[in-house]
Amino acid sequence: MNSVSTDYTWPPGERARKDYLWWHSYATRWGDNDFYGHINNRIYNSIFDTVVNYFLIKKANFDPLNSDFIGVTPEIRCRYYKSISYPEIVDVGIIINRLGKSSIQYEIGVFKLKEKDPCAVGYFVHVYVDRYDQKKVVDIPKNIFTVCKKIVKK
Amino acid sequence: MNSVSTDYTWPPGERARKDYLWWHSYATRWGDNDFYGHINNRIYNSIFDTVVNYFLIKKANFDPLNSDFIGVTPEIRCRYYKSISYPEIVDVGIIINRLGKSSIQYEIGVFKLKEKDPCAVGYFVHVYVDRYDQKKVVDIPKNIFTVCKKIVKK
Amino acid sequence: MNSVSTDYTWPPGERARKDYLWWHSYATRWGDNDFYGHINNRIYNSIFDTVVNYFLIKKANFDPLNSDFIGVTPEIRCRYYKSISYPEIVDVGIIINRLGKSSIQYEIGVFKLKEKDPCAVGYFVHVYVDRYDQKKVVDIPKNIFTVCKKIVKK
Amino acid sequence: MNSVSTDYTWPPGERARKDYLWWHSYATRWGDNDFYGHINNRIYNSIFDTVVNYFLIKKANFDPLNSDFIGVTPEIRCRYYKSISYPEIVDVGIIINRLGKSSIQYEIGVFKLKEKDPCAVGYFVHVYVDRYDQKKVVDIPKNIFTVCKKIVKK
Repeated sequence: MNSVSTDYTWPPGERARKDYLWWHSYATRWGDNDFYGHINNRIYNSIFDTVVNYFLIKKANFDPLNSDFIGVTPEIRCRYYKSISYPEIVDVGIIINRLGKSSIQYEIGVFKLKEKDPCAVGYFVHVYVDRYDQKKVVDIPKNIFTVCKKIVKK
Repeated sequence: MNSVSTDYTWPPGERARKDYLWWHSYATRWGDNDFYGHINNRIYNSIFDTVVNYFLIKKANFDPLNSDFIGVTPEIRCRYYKSISYPEIVDVGIIINRLGKSSIQYEIGVFKLKEKDPCAVGYFVHVYVDRYDQKKVVDIPKNIFTVCKKIVKK
Repeated sequence: MNSVSTDYTWPPGERARKDYLWWHSYATRWGDNDFYGHINNRIYNSIFDTVVNYFLIKKANFDPLNSDFIGVTPEIRCRYYKSISYPEIVDVGIIINRLGKSSIQYEIGVFKLKEKDPCAVGYFVHVYVDRYDQKKVVDIPKNIFTVCKKIVKK
Repeated sequence: MNSVSTDYTWPPGERARKDYLWWHSYATRWGDNDFYGHINNRIYNSIFDTVVNYFLIKKANFDPLNSDFIGVTPEIRCRYYKSISYPEIVDVGIIINRLGKSSIQYEIGVFKLKEKDPCAVGYFVHVYVDRYDQKKVVDIPKNIFTVCKKIVKK
């Protein structure tokens, strides 16, 4: 048996619940489980999208259907430590690693109920663009910038 | 307007169709498009899973329903360059960056039809484990190792 | 403008919250919304699967990963009255219209929070079969039959 | 063992490939398979949406992102005869059972490659509404009506 641990250089340290600043719950669904009885990898991207947008909708009044400026994603990365399985509910924490003028890097930790160690940790980036000309990068809208500042990593 | 390009250090160079060694086609679906009319990020993970497993099923007679050894995923990463949208069909190329004793790192390039530059590039890792004791890392099954050797990056 | 109402003969009467006997909550996800900003039709099937199996797992100790007998679905039907949209959470009620020897017809009502009228009503059928020989119809397992009797329509 | 056949009154007769007038192919994906190794029920709704909209996009130049009039769905029904499983590709046939002034009822047959009997048969309805006032039912757009007439059941 060989080790696979040297393949992975991110995240740079261990993660715990205290590393995240805003929390939301995420319920798994029957169809999330694949052949092997685990939540399929694609569902973690759904966790990231769903929880971060929920934060923006509830805290910054972001309106995804009508907003003139939207966040598009140039990169997603996710490390998986333990599998989860329907009907589990997980706790999802977010923090912002980098808040730029036009872009935000969110880090997300996914935790089984009552566990201290994450079952998955990932990040993804939103770059703000004009909804009708998505080549045009714009400043992060003020309502979003304001609430994001509150969850930036110290 | 600030640049976001310095945030991203992977992949280390530009990618083109010649960088991939095995190809499959992937058709988008109505429900893949999100609010913004783009294929949602989670679908790229589905592309990776679907095309790599198709390779293993067709070339190595991998039987996901009955195999005693399965590939689980410790990491996925994806860079997005251009959005795609239903009803597009995309060409998906794969290559193996690292073929270990127990683990395989696949790189995947997603290309719009007739385009030279990828719309997305990602990698993910399969670590082989015992299906019934998934803590137990095992050697890559021989049938899989044999076909994978043919698409390792030189 | 013509009427479309004569096309639909099911359900036979109007539905309200009192018509359902067991309840669960269902949270929508970012990727559930399609092009038009509505929860896509396929998600209602996910609601049915997720809530009915949750009932069986929690109330009858059904173990979908290991059970020798599983419910397969010969039919699903759904009527849609009002659209729902992420980030809505909906209340989902279930009742059993027919409890046979081998098959169960569940009716499901989906309600927006605090609304009296459903936004969707559907039914689906589980026929119990041997997991390893799915042509073989079997009796409903006793643990499942017992809890199902409690939510049969009077 | 009891029979479940008397529960189901639709479709009114057996279906074969000759009962459908326009055809498209649909490739399954890794994540379509659920716990039991079958394509999950929700995927059939995706088949219906994807193939009917593909017909409208390719044959009637329907533009789902910009069209002022869209088809919303008041009902879906599906009967399942045989399970399918990734990596299968299926043939999907459509026919129109009823073409009204504002609404269209599509019937869809899903067939395994080279098989004569369907593995699933369903229908769903599109009612045309104003995109920006979805309570307002409108006439079927002329480009769509024209191509739909060609696949109405005789």
